[in-house]
Amino acid sequence: MEQEMDLKNITITDAFWASRQKLVTEVVIPYQEAILRDAVPGAEKSHAIANFRIAAGQEQGEFYGMVFQDSDVAKWLEGAAYSLAIHPDAALEARVDEVIATIAAAQQEDGYLDTYFILKEPDHKFQNLQECHELYCAGHMMEAAVAYFEATGKDTLLKVCQRLADCISRHIGPEEGKKHGVPGHEEIELGLLRMYEVTANQDDLALAEYFIGQRGQDPQFFEKEKAARGWIHWSGNFVDPSYYQQHLPVREQKEAKGHAVRCMYFFSAAAELARLRSDASLTAACDQLFDNVTRKQMHLTGGIGQTAKWEGFTHDYDLPNDTCYDETCAAIGLVFFAHRMLKLHPSRRYGDVMERALYNGVLSGMQLDGKRFFYVNPLEVNPGVSGVLPGFEHVLPQRPQWYACACCPPNVTRTIASLGKYAWDETVQGDAAAAIPDAVHPGAAVVWNHLFVGGTARFTQGVLNTRTEYPWNSRTTYAFTSCSGKVWTLAFRVPAYAENPAVSLNGKTVPMTEAGVLQDGYLYLTRAWQDGDTVEFSFDMPVRRVYCNPRVRADEGCTALQRGPLVYCFEGVDNGELIQELRIPRGAALHTSIMPDGPLAGMTVIDLTGERASFPADKEEEPLYAFEPPVHSAVSMRAVPYFAWGNRGLTQMRVWIPES
Amino acid sequence: MEQEMDLKNITITDAFWASRQKLVTEVVIPYQEAILRDAVPGAEKSHAIANFRIAAGQEQGEFYGMVFQDSDVAKWLEGAAYSLAIHPDAALEARVDEVIATIAAAQQEDGYLDTYFILKEPDHKFQNLQECHELYCAGHMMEAAVAYFEATGKDTLLKVCQRLADCISRHIGPEEGKKHGVPGHEEIELGLLRMYEVTANQDDLALAEYFIGQRGQDPQFFEKEKAARGWIHWSGNFVDPSYYQQHLPVREQKEAKGHAVRCMYFFSAAAELARLRSDASLTAACDQLFDNVTRKQMHLTGGIGQTAKWEGFTHDYDLPNDTCYDETCAAIGLVFFAHRMLKLHPSRRYGDVMERALYNGVLSGMQLDGKRFFYVNPLEVNPGVSGVLPGFEHVLPQRPQWYACACCPPNVTRTIASLGKYAWDETVQGDAAAAIPDAVHPGAAVVWNHLFVGGTARFTQGVLNTRTEYPWNSRTTYAFTSCSGKVWTLAFRVPAYAENPAVSLNGKTVPMTEAGVLQDGYLYLTRAWQDGDTVEFSFDMPVRRVYCNPRVRADEGCTALQRGPLVYCFEGVDNGELIQELRIPRGAALHTSIMPDGPLAGMTVIDLTGERASFPADKEEEPLYAFEPPVHSAVSMRAVPYFAWGNRGLTQMRVWIPES
Repeated sequence: MEQEMDLKNITITDAFWASRQKLVTEVVIPYQEAILRDAVPGAEKSHAIANFRIAAGQEQGEFYGMVFQDSDVAKWLEGAAYSLAIHPDAALEARVDEVIATIAAAQQEDGYLDTYFILKEPDHKFQNLQECHELYCAGHMMEAAVAYFEATGKDTLLKVCQRLADCISRHIGPEEGKKHGVPGHEEIELGLLRMYEVTANQDDLALAEYFIGQRGQDPQFFEKEKAARGWIHWSGNFVDPSYYQQHLPVREQKEAKGHAVRCMYFFSAAAELARLRSDASLTAACDQLFDNVTRKQMHLTGGIGQTAKWEGFTHDYDLPNDTCYDETCAAIGLVFFAHRMLKLHPSRRYGDVMERALYNGVLSGMQLDGKRFFYVNPLEVNPGVSGVLPGFEHVLPQRPQWYACACCPPNVTRTIASLGKYAWDETVQGDAAAAIPDAVHPGAAVVWNHLFVGGTARFTQGVLNTRTEYPWNSRTTYAFTSCSGKVWTLAFRVPAYAENPAVSLNGKTVPMTEAGVLQDGYLYLTRAWQDGDTVEFSFDMPVRRVYCNPRVRADEGCTALQRGPLVYCFEGVDNGELIQELRIPRGAALHTSIMPDGPLAGMTVIDLTGERASFPADKEEEPLYAFEPPVHSAVSMRAVPYFAWGNRGLTQMRVWIPES
Repeated sequence: MEQEMDLKNITITDAFWASRQKLVTEVVIPYQEAILRDAVPGAEKSHAIANFRIAAGQEQGEFYGMVFQDSDVAKWLEGAAYSLAIHPDAALEARVDEVIATIAAAQQEDGYLDTYFILKEPDHKFQNLQECHELYCAGHMMEAAVAYFEATGKDTLLKVCQRLADCISRHIGPEEGKKHGVPGHEEIELGLLRMYEVTANQDDLALAEYFIGQRGQDPQFFEKEKAARGWIHWSGNFVDPSYYQQHLPVREQKEAKGHAVRCMYFFSAAAELARLRSDASLTAACDQLFDNVTRKQMHLTGGIGQTAKWEGFTHDYDLPNDTCYDETCAAIGLVFFAHRMLKLHPSRRYGDVMERALYNGVLSGMQLDGKRFFYVNPLEVNPGVSGVLPGFEHVLPQRPQWYACACCPPNVTRTIASLGKYAWDETVQGDAAAAIPDAVHPGAAVVWNHLFVGGTARFTQGVLNTRTEYPWNSRTTYAFTSCSGKVWTLAFRVPAYAENPAVSLNGKTVPMTEAGVLQDGYLYLTRAWQDGDTVEFSFDMPVRRVYCNPRVRADEGCTALQRGPLVYCFEGVDNGELIQELRIPRGAALHTSIMPDGPLAGMTVIDLTGERASFPADKEEEPLYAFEPPVHSAVSMRAVPYFAWGNRGLTQMRVWIPES
């Protein structure tokens, strides 16, 4: 049975990710805490911790904020917990304990916990699952509780959350006399499944299973719920059940629909449940849905959610670059989904998507200095259009300051801080679970390395010291120590973009097929590993041109550049403005160099001799239309990693460029 | 001094336009009348004539409809008047007289005429120029009055309108004690200038001049007006003065902004005033604005208004094909503007634009059977996206039925019915007016032919019988009769797309430079024309590829096809769906043929061997992204005239196609 990685056993030290974890620990989490404590002058009022203090009787006042204000505290707690796991900090831990004590004190006798309803509408609890996010807040609090328990061994919040789960279960569920329904925003499912990881409480699993299975059983549930209670919280809510993935039971869904973040949280939980229950029909549904998302509705960056109107999916092959939503949280949700699918069935089909989303659509959400964040991650930005014209209002050409947003920044925080969980998985004892491929010797423990990340990872069978300069260079070296001499397996992903992959064992190159078994894009190396053993994995990582399926209207005749996991983009600051005039000739050589200075210093950039199309300047008046084609003149072009766009002032940006 | 063409002197008999005028006379105008009389079962209630009858005391009831419901009657009257001018119909004329009598009876003692305010809010007259369209309705009634006077010589409505103009002038104007302001929707300016054509009443000209000059003098006028009256008619009105062209005085405006129809009506009136006053600064402003519209913000079809949000302009080189508004009325407005500019200064710069808008963005507004109409005329339509997805809701992939719209159909009606006015202009006596080019013998009367239309046109100096198969073939023959022997000039446009233009005089080919004087794209032929003289003008009209300025993001790497004045498009019904996969090879030969059957029978269509791009079908799963470019396979492609799209069922449509 596979087990969750303990972050305390994973230290990340490579240049790329260690610096980002440091940023999260030193900049983002403290800033976020100050916001929650209303200690940032000029920032929007949060009042999120104060709400708990008031509910706990520790101070006087009234509830302030959104109906889901509690989740801001939960998300910060979860991020702080991961940060404490990888970077112990007694002062932070003491402050977290104090917040948790307040939360515990705010919890009601019956286990109920939601400061909005406790303070503002005590008679309206569990009446508006569609809009009021009680279960969403609960789910986030559960994730925080488990993270903090794992990081510190302290179970105060875990116990609070178990009482909360029990309270929810007394009100909602399949049994007669309980409310039969689901929340408008999925999250409780993931929270309960996280709880189950550490509590092994079958009630938690059963409640999660209920919420997952119940969704779509009664597409009109929210309408009926509204009619029954006779009041609304917000006007203008979406009535189409597909917005909430409520149009069909999950096993009957074939396409991702509705709000992208809700959808990803739901699918992630479904995939987790499919694994826990070894549920073949649910597994098949998740596979179909993963396929739909990633092969019909996903941008090259791993961004998902094509429309701002419902922050979600539209339909197959509709992938606009300049009006898409591609919320940072949705890309994170795709990381969650892909990771759950990996645990269900290790395949680079999932691992490559997880890596694509992480290195592109997730990382682009955060400014390189950790101080500003994007909700929306377009693949094309045009100052003067983006953020301004109708249909483009949501596409900001520069990251707004942290405190203007409340949802994406903490999601980035917790993802980066807990990166080790996505990089590694471990199966302690071999069994017949689907997670263990046939080719691997039954009974062997397996350590999977999904992402190439440098550092030290401690497993049951031994310790791996990993060195890599990923994503800039492909070579990754695994050094084995603390091995017990038992036979076990190291499995790592061979990405689809890897050219001429090569493996060395203890310094000697070994043909891949001799070194191990390649299955579903993972290479399984099974040995009685000894201390001092090394494995080196490398491959050619040239700049590749990517082409989009011609069914996609937005990318007709275009190419994009990718190197390793990184998607590249062209910014006006490097290429002159009017990027729409640029063309990449089919045969143009693509050179890499290292950016010497500026915010992108040290990053691999791509240079080429491209073309700029324009109407002849010798005409008296530049025409709008002409019978002669535009003239192409040679021009130096430079592409930079997509995740780093928008760090050098207001400028155009574009991923897809017409090929000439 | 130039004079307005009298439609009664122009008979159009060519196959292309005569059939459309017949459609308007026999189908559209009767249907429209039945709507206004609430005699179409199942159609939306109009009540427009009933409102006048109630105001006239001829029946009991209450006002019903929009605040500008009166304008529906006015527009129908104008169209009916043009129809009567070209196709006398005693029964229709009698019914029009009856309606006019009702209108006259509805007019109040002081000349006021607007049934909404007379019946519903008598105390609110002239208090809400921004929203309440009193002056808009008045302007349309004035245009109708002049048209009917010209058609029949009857002046009842003309007198009503003069009393109305006088009433307005007593309330609004520059003098102390009057309201200083402008209407939210321009139209009164055009109406007053039309009145002045036949009344020569300086008060009408002065009031028009006031409205034109006053606009933009006080950009906050509407806000002040609202604050002063303390009530609103609609919520959600646009507050940006540029929506109403109120941001700057017209002479200071450099770019077209705001609502496209309002803008065109305003610029048209300004151009007319510039001519009447020989106003150099206003002429220069109009030229600059015409330039901005047509060389920075106009689609290839002559469609204008890039955004649905304010049905108007966005900014230079922003020309989306699939989300644009391109309202039929706006293209008609551009015809008006170009025609006024032609009268100000005859140049093919204006004539070509007028023709482009008319044959493409205007005609596309009407189904070939005259029974359905488009408001929005996109250059790309994708069923399942257009009319459905966010941002595309307004882009209907099929024309809705007539009665669902109230504004565009009657505008198409009046434009087609009065086509002779746009085809011909006449200057009776030579003078130094700007309209008469230097190259023409001073003192010679000039007849301008702006559009190639077959039929008979009667002028002061003689009669021209014109034969043409335009727009399918370029040859136009002018036969002179009833000539007095005086020296006069025939001038016709040599379009920019005309290749190898050739002129024959009395059957003998004459070099253009010998035949006459070519100035600003018009060929001036000055002779003492004799009965029996003939002029033949023809040119090569091959299919041309058109390219868009590369500054335009939407058309990158694309080409479109044009033949003569007609822009072509590709429909799924001819090319298979997934038009986004089609490519036009740079060297592909473009063949013309005649459509043999179906609704487009007889039209020249374009065939070529193109390419369809697709990802290899032999792959197990069709990828979304690949490192190999799409494979191109040869495919037959057919383009049809843009104006005829959407007449063969629900299907994709596209004007711009990537060139391979």
